[in-house]
Amino acid sequence: MSTKKNNPSALNEKAGISPPEIISSNAIQQIKESRKKQPSSQELIDGILAGNITALSRAITLIESTNSNHLTKANEVINGCLPHANQSIRIGITGVPGVGKSTFIEAFGKYLTSLGKKVAVLAVDPSSTISHGSILGDKTRMEELVKDKNAFIRPSASGETLGGVARKTRETITLCEAYGFDVILIETVGVGQSETAVHSMVDFFLLLKIAGAGDELQGIKRGIMEMADAIVINKADGDYIKKAQLTKVEFNRALHLFPPKKSGWIPTTATCSALTQEGIDGVWQTILDYLELVHSNHYFVEKRKEQNQFWMIETIDEQLKTHFYNQPNIIQLLESTKKAVQNNEISPFAAAQTLLDSYFKK
Amino acid sequence: MSTKKNNPSALNEKAGISPPEIISSNAIQQIKESRKKQPSSQELIDGILAGNITALSRAITLIESTNSNHLTKANEVINGCLPHANQSIRIGITGVPGVGKSTFIEAFGKYLTSLGKKVAVLAVDPSSTISHGSILGDKTRMEELVKDKNAFIRPSASGETLGGVARKTRETITLCEAYGFDVILIETVGVGQSETAVHSMVDFFLLLKIAGAGDELQGIKRGIMEMADAIVINKADGDYIKKAQLTKVEFNRALHLFPPKKSGWIPTTATCSALTQEGIDGVWQTILDYLELVHSNHYFVEKRKEQNQFWMIETIDEQLKTHFYNQPNIIQLLESTKKAVQNNEISPFAAAQTLLDSYFKK
Repeated sequence: MSTKKNNPSALNEKAGISPPEIISSNAIQQIKESRKKQPSSQELIDGILAGNITALSRAITLIESTNSNHLTKANEVINGCLPHANQSIRIGITGVPGVGKSTFIEAFGKYLTSLGKKVAVLAVDPSSTISHGSILGDKTRMEELVKDKNAFIRPSASGETLGGVARKTRETITLCEAYGFDVILIETVGVGQSETAVHSMVDFFLLLKIAGAGDELQGIKRGIMEMADAIVINKADGDYIKKAQLTKVEFNRALHLFPPKKSGWIPTTATCSALTQEGIDGVWQTILDYLELVHSNHYFVEKRKEQNQFWMIETIDEQLKTHFYNQPNIIQLLESTKKAVQNNEISPFAAAQTLLDSYFKK
Repeated sequence: MSTKKNNPSALNEKAGISPPEIISSNAIQQIKESRKKQPSSQELIDGILAGNITALSRAITLIESTNSNHLTKANEVINGCLPHANQSIRIGITGVPGVGKSTFIEAFGKYLTSLGKKVAVLAVDPSSTISHGSILGDKTRMEELVKDKNAFIRPSASGETLGGVARKTRETITLCEAYGFDVILIETVGVGQSETAVHSMVDFFLLLKIAGAGDELQGIKRGIMEMADAIVINKADGDYIKKAQLTKVEFNRALHLFPPKKSGWIPTTATCSALTQEGIDGVWQTILDYLELVHSNHYFVEKRKEQNQFWMIETIDEQLKTHFYNQPNIIQLLESTKKAVQNNEISPFAAAQTLLDSYFKK
């Protein structure tokens, strides 16, 4: 300001004193340069295909970004990776908190890398936005695996909706496969709808259990047991071996309640100990047996095709609903209409029609 | 035509011969009069509330009509009946073909009318368009009940989609309740998604079974057992009584695999014989016990409110999808996009986005 004309700013250069780096015009230039250096989508694709783990991580971050500018670039990377994907085995692993998912995955992952396999561990946990990643958020729970150069652990993407988290995870699988991982383990919590989402993106679905106090079959969520290709009773060590064996028998009987699977596979039960490694190799052998079957009867390829189509349809459905429920006129009408429906003032179908008419502006 | 000018039509009146009735101007007038006599929506409402079974039947036919002109009138009738509905007990009955659903419903229905109850029997069978009503289509299978003046049997509405059939059935329930039926039995086939639809429109869900060759627990569809409030082993008569008892025990054990119900109700198992009437009264007592519980813990009202809301949301979802998939540009794009997705040429999410962009004409 004019009154300060003769009052030079402290920031002005004084003879003999070089300005602090922060206001150096060089520094600004450097930041600009570094921003320019954000790899292009082609650079990311090339990096992933060349086995550059930094490129993979950056591309996954792009997928997980909520910045809409990143969406186009993410899609370019995914489509560039697609022709090189689809060569891995995708295994879903679920189980309620306490069954030892992390220790199992660590033991199983280590076993696989010892066989020379490259292993990626992902997670689907829609609650992670609130809990800041209740699963895989803390890599220290897989101390050994995280140090393994043939293993890659990525915590669950965060997201408002399961659909969003599932989409990001599925796209991450594509990148991991293009990178060259042989086995993709996808962990999910044993509650809610996330199992269904994971089940529809994997080749093999594994349900982890532990021996319990007699009623360990209690609390099995709708359809989770039916989705399982194998039920593995973990923590079968020390005093628990016998109990685990009994639980295995019980689950085996329970599995017979369900109709035959389209894959032709008869679900198996087994015990294992992530602590003593006992049975870990057996789990892998089961998966290999499964793969032999579904490759020979072509179910493997069919299922992946179906899954692809499923995710397309799911995404369309979700987006249509999101668009509908975000319209200002719908938001305005919805609550009062819901109330009228609950109180039998209007039939659910007439109410739906009113809202739809308003949406389509008939 | 002019060449025929002197060639009088056979239809011309001749002296002394009265024209056939079909071309009588009177007849046309009569048809017009009869069309005018189609009862108004208010007349139908009044008729239903007065207990006129013809009015009820006509109103249901209106609901089932695919003529869009009938939709408005149907909605008027439904909304007029709504304040008088909701006083019945709605019971869903399912079981695979061969368990004796028709004979059970006949025996159960007769028992209820003998107690002075008014009973309506409806059905949800989306396959009926093809099979021309595989269930309840043939009323002769319920010879006794059909003659009972306190019973009303209506075959499944036909429809292209389960959603459409379910909507029509649910609206029919409203009319039946306004008419004054105390118990609404809704039969469905023990396969596919129709159980879920029926489950979401009833208060009590009954699964019918029979004793089998040791593996009668096989083939239980996803979630159906979990939905059941009671499992009744039918045909427990003669040589089959012991077998039925064993089956009951097995199902009782299987029921314990599932998590506790929101209603607080512990599902029961029982045997019965539609032939000897043995156990039919027990089934009704179970339902009365259930009602006592859910009225006292307010679950009954809560569930009905939730069901109303569920049907509103379901209808919206279905209509949004129908609108999307019926757009000419979507129809044109869909097949090629599906193929590209199946062959991993494009990611499911990118494919969905392409279709959505075309739909919303971005």
